Amino acid sequence: MKVINDLLGFNMKIVQDTDFFNFSLDSVLLYNFLNLKPNMKVIDICSGNCPIPMLISTKVNNKIYAVEIQKEVYELGKESIEINNLQDKIELLNMDAKELGKRFETDTFDLITCNPPYFKINEETKKNDNKIKSIARHEIEITLEDIIKLSRKLLKNNGSLVLVHRPERLSEIIVLMEKYNISPKRIQFIYPKEKTESNMIIIEGTKNGNNALKVLEPLIIHEENGDYRKEIENIFKGC
Amino acid sequence: MKVINDLLGFNMKIVQDTDFFNFSLDSVLLYNFLNLKPNMKVIDICSGNCPIPMLISTKVNNKIYAVEIQKEVYELGKESIEINNLQDKIELLNMDAKELGKRFETDTFDLITCNPPYFKINEETKKNDNKIKSIARHEIEITLEDIIKLSRKLLKNNGSLVLVHRPERLSEIIVLMEKYNISPKRIQFIYPKEKTESNMIIIEGTKNGNNALKVLEPLIIHEENGDYRKEIENIFKGC
Repeated sequence: MKVINDLLGFNMKIVQDTDFFNFSLDSVLLYNFLNLKPNMKVIDICSGNCPIPMLISTKVNNKIYAVEIQKEVYELGKESIEINNLQDKIELLNMDAKELGKRFETDTFDLITCNPPYFKINEETKKNDNKIKSIARHEIEITLEDIIKLSRKLLKNNGSLVLVHRPERLSEIIVLMEKYNISPKRIQFIYPKEKTESNMIIIEGTKNGNNALKVLEPLIIHEENGDYRKEIENIFKGC
Repeated sequence: MKVINDLLGFNMKIVQDTDFFNFSLDSVLLYNFLNLKPNMKVIDICSGNCPIPMLISTKVNNKIYAVEIQKEVYELGKESIEINNLQDKIELLNMDAKELGKRFETDTFDLITCNPPYFKINEETKKNDNKIKSIARHEIEITLEDIIKLSRKLLKNNGSLVLVHRPERLSEIIVLMEKYNISPKRIQFIYPKEKTESNMIIIEGTKNGNNALKVLEPLIIHEENGDYRKEIENIFKGC
C-alpha cells in the first residue's frame, strides 16, 4: 500500500510502499552524523525512496546524486523528490550502482553516503518471496565490498564514505576499508537502550586518509520506559 | 615511592611504585568483561604489578600464569602476590612474553588476557627518561602484532584473547586479529561520560572462531558531576 508520510521535523514528505519497507531511523541518524558543507559534491547509493539525499539537500547547495537499482522503488523516490519540489537539487538515477564508475569520473565526490543491504545472502534470502524487499535487505545486487571498492574510485582524495550498518559486520567493514585504502575515521554506536547491545553503527572512512580513529559518544535511542530520549527527539526535529 | 593500596572491593592489596604507574581502572574493567569458569587455563601477559591475575584468581581454581618482562615491576607483582597469599594460585614469570612459545605448548590456554602498552614508538618515547614507564606504555619490548601472533599459538581452538586498548587502535586490532584467525567476538566501549568520545575498548577474539560480533552495552564511567556512576561503583565492589 502506497502512503505519504512526513519526514519528521524536516518539513518534507516521503512516499513509501508499506509492502516494501518504511522509511526508518537509520537514515536520519546517518544524516545527523554527517559534517556537511554547502559546496560538497555528494552521491547517495542504495537510495531507496530517497530519505538521505532529501535530508542532505537541506544543507548542500550542489546537485546531489542518488542511485536506486529497483525500478519500483526508484519510482517512489522520484515521487518523493517531486512532491517536495526537489527535482533541481536531487538527480535520482535508476541504475546498478556497480556501473557508476562508467557514469562518473574517478575522484569526483567529497562524500558518498549509503544505507546498504545489511544481510549476506543465505537460506532465508531464497525463501523470502517479496523480491523487492529481499534486494533492499540482502546482498543480492550489491555487496559491502562492491560499495567500498566503488567508493575508492569515486571519492576525491580525503573524501568520505559514510555507511550505516549492523555491528555484526564491523570487522568486515574495517578490513575492507583498510584493503581499499579508506581509512576509518569516526564511528558511532547506536544502542536501543542504555543497557542493551548496539544494533546499529555509523562509520566514516576517508580515501587515502591517515586517521586516528574516533569513537563518538554513544547514541542511546530509548529511555527505559520506551520513550525516545531527548537527544533523539531533537534529531527528529532537525535541531 | 612504594605504596600498598587496596584492590578496591576485592579484599586484596596491591604493591605499587608511584614512580612507575598506578593500578588503574583498565584492569578492573577488563576483569568485569570476562566470562570466567573455575577450570579455565589462563595466562595474563604484560602483567605489571599483577592486578588482572589477582582479580581472576577470585573465580578460577587452576593455577594462573602471569608474565612481566621488567625486573623492577616483576618484583612489585611478586610482593603483591605474596601479601595476598596467592603464591599457590599465581605463577609470575619474569621473561619476555615473545618467548612464551618456548615455555608452553601450542594450544594450551582457554584465555589470554592482556593490558598491553597502548602507544606506538614515536618521538615522545625517546624523550621520556623514565625507562620503566616507557616500556609499560610504549611498544618498545612488545607490539600489538606480537601479542596477537603469540595468542594464535598459545590459545586452544575457540580459546579467547581479551585485550583492553585505546579506540584509536581499533582498526589495527581488528585487522591483526583477522590476519591471525582470531575472530572478534565481543567489544565493549568505555565512555568517560555520556556525552564524550570513548577512551577505552575491551575486545575479545576467539581462535578459529566464526563469530557474529557483538557490541556490548556502553560502559559510562562518570556522571556529569564527575561522580562514579552506580554501575561502576558496583564493579568496584566486586558485585
